[in-house]
Amino acid sequence: MIPKANRLNNVQEYYFSKKLREVSILEKEGKPIINIAIGSPDLQPPIQVIEAIKSTVEIDNAHSYQSYQGIPELRLAMCNFYKRMYNVVLKNDEVLPLMGSKEGIMLISLAFLNTGDEVLIPNPGYPTYSSVTNLVGAKPIFYNLNEENNWLPDFDELEQQNLTKVKLIWVNYPHMPTGAKASSVAFQKIISFAKKHQILVVNDNPYSFILNDKPQSILELQGAKEVALELNSLSKSFNMAGWRVGLVAGKEKYIKAILQVKSNMDSGMFLGIQKGAIAALKTPEKWFTDLNLIYEKRRKIVWKIMEILNCTYTKNSSGLFVWGKLPKEKDALDFTDKLLSDKYIFITPGNIFGTNGEGYIRVSLCVPEAKLNEALQRLIVVKLKK
Amino acid sequence: MIPKANRLNNVQEYYFSKKLREVSILEKEGKPIINIAIGSPDLQPPIQVIEAIKSTVEIDNAHSYQSYQGIPELRLAMCNFYKRMYNVVLKNDEVLPLMGSKEGIMLISLAFLNTGDEVLIPNPGYPTYSSVTNLVGAKPIFYNLNEENNWLPDFDELEQQNLTKVKLIWVNYPHMPTGAKASSVAFQKIISFAKKHQILVVNDNPYSFILNDKPQSILELQGAKEVALELNSLSKSFNMAGWRVGLVAGKEKYIKAILQVKSNMDSGMFLGIQKGAIAALKTPEKWFTDLNLIYEKRRKIVWKIMEILNCTYTKNSSGLFVWGKLPKEKDALDFTDKLLSDKYIFITPGNIFGTNGEGYIRVSLCVPEAKLNEALQRLIVVKLKK
Repeated sequence: MIPKANRLNNVQEYYFSKKLREVSILEKEGKPIINIAIGSPDLQPPIQVIEAIKSTVEIDNAHSYQSYQGIPELRLAMCNFYKRMYNVVLKNDEVLPLMGSKEGIMLISLAFLNTGDEVLIPNPGYPTYSSVTNLVGAKPIFYNLNEENNWLPDFDELEQQNLTKVKLIWVNYPHMPTGAKASSVAFQKIISFAKKHQILVVNDNPYSFILNDKPQSILELQGAKEVALELNSLSKSFNMAGWRVGLVAGKEKYIKAILQVKSNMDSGMFLGIQKGAIAALKTPEKWFTDLNLIYEKRRKIVWKIMEILNCTYTKNSSGLFVWGKLPKEKDALDFTDKLLSDKYIFITPGNIFGTNGEGYIRVSLCVPEAKLNEALQRLIVVKLKK
Repeated sequence: MIPKANRLNNVQEYYFSKKLREVSILEKEGKPIINIAIGSPDLQPPIQVIEAIKSTVEIDNAHSYQSYQGIPELRLAMCNFYKRMYNVVLKNDEVLPLMGSKEGIMLISLAFLNTGDEVLIPNPGYPTYSSVTNLVGAKPIFYNLNEENNWLPDFDELEQQNLTKVKLIWVNYPHMPTGAKASSVAFQKIISFAKKHQILVVNDNPYSFILNDKPQSILELQGAKEVALELNSLSKSFNMAGWRVGLVAGKEKYIKAILQVKSNMDSGMFLGIQKGAIAALKTPEKWFTDLNLIYEKRRKIVWKIMEILNCTYTKNSSGLFVWGKLPKEKDALDFTDKLLSDKYIFITPGNIFGTNGEGYIRVSLCVPEAKLNEALQRLIVVKLKK
């Protein structure tokens, strides 16, 4: 047996990968599991997306290799979308289609990080930032986000650290798991910090159209392109998580470095998927109004669930989740495990996103109202019985 | 400007990426370019593949995240295909769907190579093996293939090298660019060599069904799974290059290491593509008979082109190309550049695949007979005029 590479020793199995096996066993035993843990949109994409892929696969040249950069029409649609939705002007070579923003985390890390470089990673935050950092031989340095700071970086704290080896900072606003938003002022602070220390900022921005009055791009800020890249995705915005379409936007020189990595890893995106993505990006704004009406209704029920669970939460949050603070003495992992085994309700413990998520839980809005109400009723009945 | 990672300093722009810009300029000038340089299948996939994706995108859950491992039905179809076509028995966990075999080169390199590990790479061979090796911080060591050895590894030569740092050897039979095939004896020698030195062998096997009477998998050989993995792809076999579907097959422990990397880079394959792939893998053998009849007819014309160009070639080759040896004094790059500028015929110089490809040219079969005949006529006329 030839041993695997050392870089894999630092990569743990993803919490959900393990936990979902447990959940699936319970389901097989006939337990009435309600899964409100995962942020996988259950709603359908715009109908024209489905029409676009269906008509494209009929075309003769639909099945051959595509360019690494995507067809010009897709990049143009991405540029137009950024102009229309964020008022950000991008040239055609300032955007690169990706197989989801997740692919971007690996590509950017390979394109910019040397062995031993340090990377600032939000705690709590999306676990892939640190696992990919480890995979490419760089060093994750977690920075604290907490409720007192509205889950925004504490620059006084950051400035006290030795930042000489830091090459990159991951930010993610609207923030997963907390739903916190960054104001323009907050984005400006991040950019100033990055410029001062010559650190590349990457804002991972897949949630900006979900329950958010004012979608923002970090690239809106003056001078942002000097130091900032942005990842975006169609997964949540257009219910196309399975399609794997995202993008990275920013200065052409940065995009070129990313393309240098990408051209060695894949051979372009399926034409049908590109055409579907173009159709999605052209969807009129009403799409988001309608989508958010559904999420708002669901969220009201989840707020009630939070109350029944004696959790506190903010109503001013964005994205596909509600983030709740458990009563002081509660441990998030114990709490969620008990909810699963006693009530067959699967929610996410906050600590899987980092130590600052300890004492919190995350509930998904990707479940129909009926199911959320069922969960709520199950909890109310239990409470009344006590 | 934040500098890119050092690993990118060793990665050159791909020959075709540059050259196709030149070709496209000529086309815009109205020059009647005939491109017989590239191995991108121009024919259509089986009709049931197109039907499968069209009906799948109508299904409600078609648009959400899929498992990293692919749906069980796809893995089963891959196992059944390996049994039926190669007589290789694979368990469900011994196969992992990939976004083309190209993705596999990066995943395997990240999963098994540490900084400084050495990797044996065929010369001539697919340029991605060495660029990815450089990207992950390992060291490419080229091994010689040449016409005298039927483009098979020379183990006497290899044994004379210091192999202590070698962790992996890339092999690729049927071989690109030469079309050479490996016999079972040759595969057995590769496996014995790998076992003796505890080197992981990866056979990149996307061409086995094209112009090949006896498709072979390295995993057929006894004891192969101890040290060998195989990459395969639907791109050439089913004219689905743009779909990006491939697989890696081998021992479960190896597959698990690859999955550990993959789960940090993407989020599963689009369900419609998986269903299309399943339909392809179930296509009856007659598909290959019909497909190869077309390629045989094309190849006869390409042989004539080789003769007109005073090249020697073997009729006993597999895959999507004809590999021809230029008259002794000719330089491949000069020769192909001149053919492009004088006759507007674009073919590939062999040296882009390594120094042992110097003095050779590669012509693709992915062009209709009419176009190939046009190229032939253009060359005959020129010859008669002289």
